[in-house]
Amino acid sequence: MHRELIQASVCTIGDEILIGQIVDTNSSHIASALESIGVKVTRMVSFGDVREDIIGTLETELRQNDIVIVTGGLGPTKDDITKSALAELSGSTGYVENKEQLETIERILHSRGLDVLDINRAQALVPDRCEVIQNRLGTAPVMVFRFTGTEFGHPCTLYSLPGVPYEAEGALPDVLGDIKGHHSLTEICHRTVMTYGIAESALSKMIAEWEDSLPDDMHLAYLPDPVKGVRLRLSIYGGVREEQDSRISKELERLKPLLGDAIYAGYDTTLQEVIGKMLRMSGKTVSAAESCTGGMISRLLTSVPGASGYYLGSVTSYAISVKERILGVSPSVIEEYGVVSSECAAQMAQGVRRITGSDFAISTTGIAGPDGGTDENPVGTVWVGVTSESGTETRKFRYSSDRTRNIERFASSALDVLRKKIESDTGIVMSNLNK
Amino acid sequence: MHRELIQASVCTIGDEILIGQIVDTNSSHIASALESIGVKVTRMVSFGDVREDIIGTLETELRQNDIVIVTGGLGPTKDDITKSALAELSGSTGYVENKEQLETIERILHSRGLDVLDINRAQALVPDRCEVIQNRLGTAPVMVFRFTGTEFGHPCTLYSLPGVPYEAEGALPDVLGDIKGHHSLTEICHRTVMTYGIAESALSKMIAEWEDSLPDDMHLAYLPDPVKGVRLRLSIYGGVREEQDSRISKELERLKPLLGDAIYAGYDTTLQEVIGKMLRMSGKTVSAAESCTGGMISRLLTSVPGASGYYLGSVTSYAISVKERILGVSPSVIEEYGVVSSECAAQMAQGVRRITGSDFAISTTGIAGPDGGTDENPVGTVWVGVTSESGTETRKFRYSSDRTRNIERFASSALDVLRKKIESDTGIVMSNLNK
Repeated sequence: MHRELIQASVCTIGDEILIGQIVDTNSSHIASALESIGVKVTRMVSFGDVREDIIGTLETELRQNDIVIVTGGLGPTKDDITKSALAELSGSTGYVENKEQLETIERILHSRGLDVLDINRAQALVPDRCEVIQNRLGTAPVMVFRFTGTEFGHPCTLYSLPGVPYEAEGALPDVLGDIKGHHSLTEICHRTVMTYGIAESALSKMIAEWEDSLPDDMHLAYLPDPVKGVRLRLSIYGGVREEQDSRISKELERLKPLLGDAIYAGYDTTLQEVIGKMLRMSGKTVSAAESCTGGMISRLLTSVPGASGYYLGSVTSYAISVKERILGVSPSVIEEYGVVSSECAAQMAQGVRRITGSDFAISTTGIAGPDGGTDENPVGTVWVGVTSESGTETRKFRYSSDRTRNIERFASSALDVLRKKIESDTGIVMSNLNK
Repeated sequence: MHRELIQASVCTIGDEILIGQIVDTNSSHIASALESIGVKVTRMVSFGDVREDIIGTLETELRQNDIVIVTGGLGPTKDDITKSALAELSGSTGYVENKEQLETIERILHSRGLDVLDINRAQALVPDRCEVIQNRLGTAPVMVFRFTGTEFGHPCTLYSLPGVPYEAEGALPDVLGDIKGHHSLTEICHRTVMTYGIAESALSKMIAEWEDSLPDDMHLAYLPDPVKGVRLRLSIYGGVREEQDSRISKELERLKPLLGDAIYAGYDTTLQEVIGKMLRMSGKTVSAAESCTGGMISRLLTSVPGASGYYLGSVTSYAISVKERILGVSPSVIEEYGVVSSECAAQMAQGVRRITGSDFAISTTGIAGPDGGTDENPVGTVWVGVTSESGTETRKFRYSSDRTRNIERFASSALDVLRKKIESDTGIVMSNLNK
């Protein structure tokens, strides 16, 4: 069977992105989805709500790619001119009303108790040269423009999706189905290993020999992330997926002993997902006492669907009075050692474990900044406490970033401490398990 | 004085972005900074770690823009080839060691207790045709390549920044200073009004007459965001900033009565910033009792620097036992009305206010999904409670998104309820105040 290497460009329309008022998250979701079906994304481009820019950029991207996916510029309000630019680009001679999308628009607005306005109804109008994929989650239709080869030098397809991230994501499965229906796709084989606690350059030195010994068609990438740690990704393009996957697995088995317990999973995931999985497997529960992380540990733990099965709750104790009255931290500990101390972290963890009745408890107390640092505990210092029936441990970390980044690092360092405690108490080691 | 309209392109290098493994946040920060000094960003482009793509794309962007800012592809590890591509693009004949950057590299690694490896030292080598701006926050230097006009048809400048967001942000002020030193910039005047609680299409209808009456050189954009609400942005390019600002102010004064208390600020901000400002002004404090939002309200409130001045703490009560034992919710209320009820939300807010001693308290109890919905309370339902010495109120909201989005909407709806309660108790109305 002949397989094609299909190239795609992901485009985003909107002045709000160009002036930095919103971060473009659609492109990332779309790229990830395309990658999963073996489509190679070569470029992402964002440009403004200006007719000439829309037409000029899309023409260039269509000439250089098999598929162009465009998001944005389809809202009901007056600053969106994408649809008429697409009509011109595609040589459409007019607009037609799409009945199914009009019914969807009416259904969505009625379910929200809203009237259907003329500007809502106008969203069901599409250029006559496009096919429509129903957008069940939103009012803007997904438009598909197929070009035979005369227009841009080769056959290519443009998909126009709404810019609202929830709607764009909702439309993606149908778009992927359409792409798969029209192409025989080359497989891309990726595997990711998650590490936490070792800096990128140190990691690189630790695995240099292994990296040098990799076969030529295997590509290694380092993906550092303040919350997830450094991800290592091995990729091969083409070939039979099962064979390539098994070749990559062999190399990863050689990697594991080099990194030890810095590896927290053998696939792309997060510390909170891994913690959730271990707690579900062992039937244990967790709670948290947060100071400087201000709810972020709880937020991360509860971002996992089904967290109510093992996460009991937490206390965020910004004020000293809350640390003492609710968590039972002893005033003498605070007087003698200060709130940013091993002793306070230990009592916070023990306190929240006691009042929630959880098996494990994690705590943080530190200084996220920008103010509040001292010589002994500069901004960026955090004490993490972890406790269970096997005992209480504390660890100190020091970072040197801004408030937002420090909070992220404090929270992920705490989750990593918790992860290792659960591994050690339960004997489950996620890096040995498959997804 | 002659003023130029300077156009810029913001480029990001990295396969990890193209396969959707990380979201590009650098471009947004850089665009926002450029916009603030009057540089118009025309395009953002992301492309892979491939020499021909790097050179080809940067040549195109340099031809079409005065300034090109590139992030990424400068890490110490082996998958980064940006520097040699830039050497070729600029016609450099070799590399020189930058002493200052080498000292910075040594200082940073020593402060982290790390050895300086050869791959770290190599980061201080730069192509001989570039100028270096010190990167004090990281190991990769900021490189500036100035082109006179013979290379790309007009004078233009390329800035190469590290891809780590913290380092890219740290380098930005010096890059902006360099741009301002080389250009007389056209002013761009933007003003943003923040609204919460009205959908984009309904908002558009409410202000249609006002929008139609705006002068031709004033551009209105709708920027919906699940957490911030719908932002309305008025812009004028060129002219004298003070005059344009006063013209925009007049139009915004006419807008205010149309939207009433849906407006929560007259500049680009967040509900948690506005709440923080009102609490600081009034000397009041706040606490939170969270169920389905799992720490997100606390996370948002404590994301504001100085939050320890008014935020005392919170209890995240996922388990019923935590609601009862720590917050004092009455078992009979849970038995009679269930946890997702007005009564439970009220007792949670009252409970956390009582145990923390705060002036205001906010609570949430609902169903974020994907599981746990009932006919009466489907996934997406939340009860919000708010309490202060003036009394307790509750409100029910219903959304229909996925877990992540529901949690975001629950938390921001709760913050908006809290914002209105603080406005009503203290008499402070932020939409009447300047930044």
